Amino acid sequence: MATFRKHFVVARDVYSEDSFAEDHEKIYRVRKTTMHHVKEYLICDSKRAKNAALSLLPIIGWMRIYKVREWLLGDVVSGISTGLVAIMQGLAFSLLASLPPSYGLYTAFFPMLTYFFLGTSRHISVGSFPVLSLMVGAVVTRLVPEDGPPANITGFEGLTQDQQRVLVASSVTFLVGIFQLAMGILQVGFIVVYLSDTLVSGFTTAAAIHILVSQLKFVLGLNVPGISGPLSIIYTLEKIFVQITATNICDLVMSIVIMVVVFIVKELNEKYRAKLPVPIPIEVIVTIIACGVSYGFNFEGRFDVDVVGKMVSGYEAPIAPNMEVLQDSAVEAFPVAIVGFAVAFSVAKVYSIKNDYTIDGNQELIAFGVSNIFGASFRSFAASTALSRTAVQESSGGKTQIAGLISAMMAMIVTVALGFLLEPLPRSVLGALVIVNLKGMLMQFREIYYLWRRDKPECVVWVGTCLGATLLGLDLGLAVGLGVELLTVVFRIQFPCCSLLANIPGTDLYRNRKDYLNIIEHKGVKILRMPSPIFFANIEFFKDKLVEAVGFNPLRVLRKRNKALRKLKKMLQDKDDHITEKVLGGLFCKTTDESYMNKEEMDLPLDLKDLPFPIDWDTELPSNISVPKVDLHSLILDFSAVSFLDVSALKGLKTALKELIRVDVDVYIVSCDVYILEKLHSCMFFDNEILTSMFFLTIHDAMLHILEKHNNGKNKNWVLKHTRL
Amino acid sequence: MATFRKHFVVARDVYSEDSFAEDHEKIYRVRKTTMHHVKEYLICDSKRAKNAALSLLPIIGWMRIYKVREWLLGDVVSGISTGLVAIMQGLAFSLLASLPPSYGLYTAFFPMLTYFFLGTSRHISVGSFPVLSLMVGAVVTRLVPEDGPPANITGFEGLTQDQQRVLVASSVTFLVGIFQLAMGILQVGFIVVYLSDTLVSGFTTAAAIHILVSQLKFVLGLNVPGISGPLSIIYTLEKIFVQITATNICDLVMSIVIMVVVFIVKELNEKYRAKLPVPIPIEVIVTIIACGVSYGFNFEGRFDVDVVGKMVSGYEAPIAPNMEVLQDSAVEAFPVAIVGFAVAFSVAKVYSIKNDYTIDGNQELIAFGVSNIFGASFRSFAASTALSRTAVQESSGGKTQIAGLISAMMAMIVTVALGFLLEPLPRSVLGALVIVNLKGMLMQFREIYYLWRRDKPECVVWVGTCLGATLLGLDLGLAVGLGVELLTVVFRIQFPCCSLLANIPGTDLYRNRKDYLNIIEHKGVKILRMPSPIFFANIEFFKDKLVEAVGFNPLRVLRKRNKALRKLKKMLQDKDDHITEKVLGGLFCKTTDESYMNKEEMDLPLDLKDLPFPIDWDTELPSNISVPKVDLHSLILDFSAVSFLDVSALKGLKTALKELIRVDVDVYIVSCDVYILEKLHSCMFFDNEILTSMFFLTIHDAMLHILEKHNNGKNKNWVLKHTRL
Repeated sequence: MATFRKHFVVARDVYSEDSFAEDHEKIYRVRKTTMHHVKEYLICDSKRAKNAALSLLPIIGWMRIYKVREWLLGDVVSGISTGLVAIMQGLAFSLLASLPPSYGLYTAFFPMLTYFFLGTSRHISVGSFPVLSLMVGAVVTRLVPEDGPPANITGFEGLTQDQQRVLVASSVTFLVGIFQLAMGILQVGFIVVYLSDTLVSGFTTAAAIHILVSQLKFVLGLNVPGISGPLSIIYTLEKIFVQITATNICDLVMSIVIMVVVFIVKELNEKYRAKLPVPIPIEVIVTIIACGVSYGFNFEGRFDVDVVGKMVSGYEAPIAPNMEVLQDSAVEAFPVAIVGFAVAFSVAKVYSIKNDYTIDGNQELIAFGVSNIFGASFRSFAASTALSRTAVQESSGGKTQIAGLISAMMAMIVTVALGFLLEPLPRSVLGALVIVNLKGMLMQFREIYYLWRRDKPECVVWVGTCLGATLLGLDLGLAVGLGVELLTVVFRIQFPCCSLLANIPGTDLYRNRKDYLNIIEHKGVKILRMPSPIFFANIEFFKDKLVEAVGFNPLRVLRKRNKALRKLKKMLQDKDDHITEKVLGGLFCKTTDESYMNKEEMDLPLDLKDLPFPIDWDTELPSNISVPKVDLHSLILDFSAVSFLDVSALKGLKTALKELIRVDVDVYIVSCDVYILEKLHSCMFFDNEILTSMFFLTIHDAMLHILEKHNNGKNKNWVLKHTRL
Repeated sequence: MATFRKHFVVARDVYSEDSFAEDHEKIYRVRKTTMHHVKEYLICDSKRAKNAALSLLPIIGWMRIYKVREWLLGDVVSGISTGLVAIMQGLAFSLLASLPPSYGLYTAFFPMLTYFFLGTSRHISVGSFPVLSLMVGAVVTRLVPEDGPPANITGFEGLTQDQQRVLVASSVTFLVGIFQLAMGILQVGFIVVYLSDTLVSGFTTAAAIHILVSQLKFVLGLNVPGISGPLSIIYTLEKIFVQITATNICDLVMSIVIMVVVFIVKELNEKYRAKLPVPIPIEVIVTIIACGVSYGFNFEGRFDVDVVGKMVSGYEAPIAPNMEVLQDSAVEAFPVAIVGFAVAFSVAKVYSIKNDYTIDGNQELIAFGVSNIFGASFRSFAASTALSRTAVQESSGGKTQIAGLISAMMAMIVTVALGFLLEPLPRSVLGALVIVNLKGMLMQFREIYYLWRRDKPECVVWVGTCLGATLLGLDLGLAVGLGVELLTVVFRIQFPCCSLLANIPGTDLYRNRKDYLNIIEHKGVKILRMPSPIFFANIEFFKDKLVEAVGFNPLRVLRKRNKALRKLKKMLQDKDDHITEKVLGGLFCKTTDESYMNKEEMDLPLDLKDLPFPIDWDTELPSNISVPKVDLHSLILDFSAVSFLDVSALKGLKTALKELIRVDVDVYIVSCDVYILEKLHSCMFFDNEILTSMFFLTIHDAMLHILEKHNNGKNKNWVLKHTRL
């Protein structure tokens, strides 16, 4: 029995699950119960306490391994470059939040102070993020609209519009922090896995569209009130187009020039990345030039250009969040908390993998929660991270959050000392810088084509999220996107491609019978492969496929057989009573009256015990009794891809199998997962009709068992023939 | 080579997917594209037109086979009994809708007239359904509260409160009809599969609680305004308990007596079902008695009992729906449309299976849509079916909707002629009858225990839906339930139990290595089974399991090897340049400076082409170079239960496999579904590192291939030994 190259021989018993269990003893393993897990989780010893303390203050971890000589220079250089970007972005993104620009600088400062101690990522640059700023801005403009009175909130009395807005923004940020902190404490950081790449891509593209539209008014120098709520983007565009003739040409020209210059230089930076020592800080350069030009030519006075204006110099006293605002914005703050964390976490993960350290999602939630609460107390708005800024921090040599701390210091210096230099900066310049940075986000539109070719359901998720978030607003859009995403998962397993299998001759392999010419299907046996889990949404579909596969409706056949059986019994009884054929004929007329039959009895198993002879339904019946012929004696269900069954599926499967068994079709289930088998046992799937002996290890085991049973050795030939030695 | 009983031999080639495809030619099958399906759907010929016409008027189908002699008597008897029930329920359920009782009789009449022609179910009794009535009632009390002014709607001017309420109810019903009709035309009847049995059970239990609470005020004879919106049930209970001392004792006593009597008689009916020719119509009897007693003793005047009062005699002119109400109630009408259809369809399905005919979900939607629009024009409220009434119609001999038509006629007779007889009927009697009929729905609480033992996630769905619908109201609760349900499906496949498999000696079978004592694990080979689909929510989990299974982090090993390689190359180069050992030592100090390394290069495949000798990473390295040992040469992934992969999973899988391949671990994927393999091809999964040759048919094929490859015949013994002949 030599083993040739690439040829093998297996000789073993035909195994049903039962006989396999007999031959191969299973190790009894104690399963941990839920209680056990909870207990384990609550155990407290000194080691765990120490670990918990360390994980709550990740700074201890990286400070202990800090290599001053090697890392400090990089951190300082990186901190300064990141600081410049953070200042620019802080100013620009505060426009998205509909707040005075100085508060953007606050956001670049305060949250970093606490993140420094609590964050597990060593590379992300904590601060404003355009999408979050826009989401906060939506609440701000809803509660304190530009035109018209602010919402009826007690805390607003005696405050200027800007003060009211800052109060709203900081209250929302406070709530965002509370949500994040709570999620961190509850250890539910894993929920971000539901924000799949596709969903995030669609969502951020929609955000980019919102940002683009919101910045148009600055670029065009128009006075458009911020609008929030569903379809706000359309109303905003409408308002812009209505007054398009009032465009400030100075703003427009300056914006276009800046956009073109920045765009080109950025492309060059990208192209010659390898050759340039550091990328050209074009945004800082154009800002400084624009400041100078605007100041020198007095743009504000001469061309009526909207400038940054009076910056708040230094810091203000902490404020408490306004309870009414909290209540009113809870529904909007939750998505902000989720998005802020999701973005920061995904960016942090990229860099943690690149630099080979671990980050902890729940600790990140705690860190951002505390940072936002702390920041909100000092009037900064919701903080997360921006991919672009983090890329600068990492690529310019940042090794730890020391770099982040230095960049925060830069923002502080501008706030307390240099703010006045930025006062002549036109807002259109900031708007133009925001728009030109949207390129990456808007390029995501290419995903549609990519996804459409690869995976239609994901394309639907992308388009659904993007459309939803664009039209309904970012918060509602996120919910819509999540709904669509969950539905697609259900959809994928809901309409499986069931296939009928047949044997590849000479092997123990079974494949779709439609796919191969040379394939053997045994008479009276069907093999149905179910390529997905069975659950409430596809159990009916599965039952239909089952009926289609066997080629007849088992319930209908059962009822016909039961009726025939009743007739037969009647006939026999009548014969016993020596009644003439004629009367018998007459009686038969009566029994065809359907109302006479109890319908429920028709669905019961055939009761053959009163019959003096066995019945073969496919042959010897009196001519006046007709039942449909059934040319199937066995059905094999391949459950190898059934990864779960729910209670509905269990019930439906049981009914379907019983109907088949009652019309004398042997059903075999093969390759069933061990856990599912256990579940079937615990859910009382088995009774006197559905037996454990119907479970076999493989299709081939079941098939051999069937051939053995139905051919009484007649077909031993096949078994021999198909074993090629 | 005799085949013994229950023993078999297979001898065949070791197949990878590639070699199998070579040996067994596949039939090329033309796949229908989406366009093709659409075209096919839009083709129109006379046969299709005829079928479409027939399916739009199902009455033609059953009228043609109507057996007058056999069926008519049953239909008439059934129609009369059902009619009595329909009248009772119509009166009672109109209280749930907060409408005058006569409109319940309208609902028992109008919708049936159109359903008669359009419905595909021959057994359901069309008319009021308590849950729907309650849902309509929630809108009614929201827009026209009992105390306080009605909503600011133009159409309300000059109408009494009852007229306003009828206008609201009929407008909502109109909208429900529009939604159902639209869904029917769009052929989206399949969406009811998402309302799983568990969800419906939890939902109807919550509905029963709402109904119970809403009827308490009638039973106690209190004046409690209807409250709608989240937590309304708690506010209602609060209001009831506040004035519990004002209970009308006459109402309470009468209600308790009726509840006890009806309950007992119903139990007896159930117990002696086989012996009784027809169940005792106890509800009709107590209603008649209560009417008589109330009239005779002048309950209204003497005990201040709230009675049905003036019935609208005859029918009123049709009304148009109010546009403002439509706009205001759209969000609430949609769940009513869904629930109404879902209930009717599920009841209809039970009877269609029992009586062996087919029903068509989309046609049912059209039928109910038209019926509700028609009914709404004549001031009836949302119609569906009630299980109890349908049971009466079927069990008392109803064969077709002729019975339904007759029951509608009964309702008409009461409306036009006998309504005055019902005027002295106390409302508390109706309330008591509603409450006593809740038994079945409330008994569903037992499901909690049943589901908890069988399937925890479904228990969560039940409790979530029930709690949500109880506390937030039925419409919001339904949305919450659906969300929880979809989440559980995702959850079930999100945290699969990955297991490491090993060989059962002497067979080609592989099982969980922890489960068996006598099981063979080959050195250097791991077999990981993934028992669920891989998608965005579990790809990270899967990657973790992969790292856990192989026992090392491949990316980290790759980086270490790349660093070591660089050192080696440097050493070789330096040796070539005849630099002394000492200098070499000095150079090494420099190269340990991490910043010198380009991190991205560390993740690339090992570049061995400049080395003059092959490297065996596990042995012969210079002492100053250390890389982690890897004692794994092959990994087999069992994909038999992976029923789908999405784009995120594809990307993640590709990354993970590449990392393994780059540290010289051969990865094999076995039992992969044909469709998934096709998808991998179309999504460009394969490149110069990930090859199609890694796919094998079974674990055993891959294992034999590995043993062949890695033992160079050394271990032929095993292959021989394990084939027992």
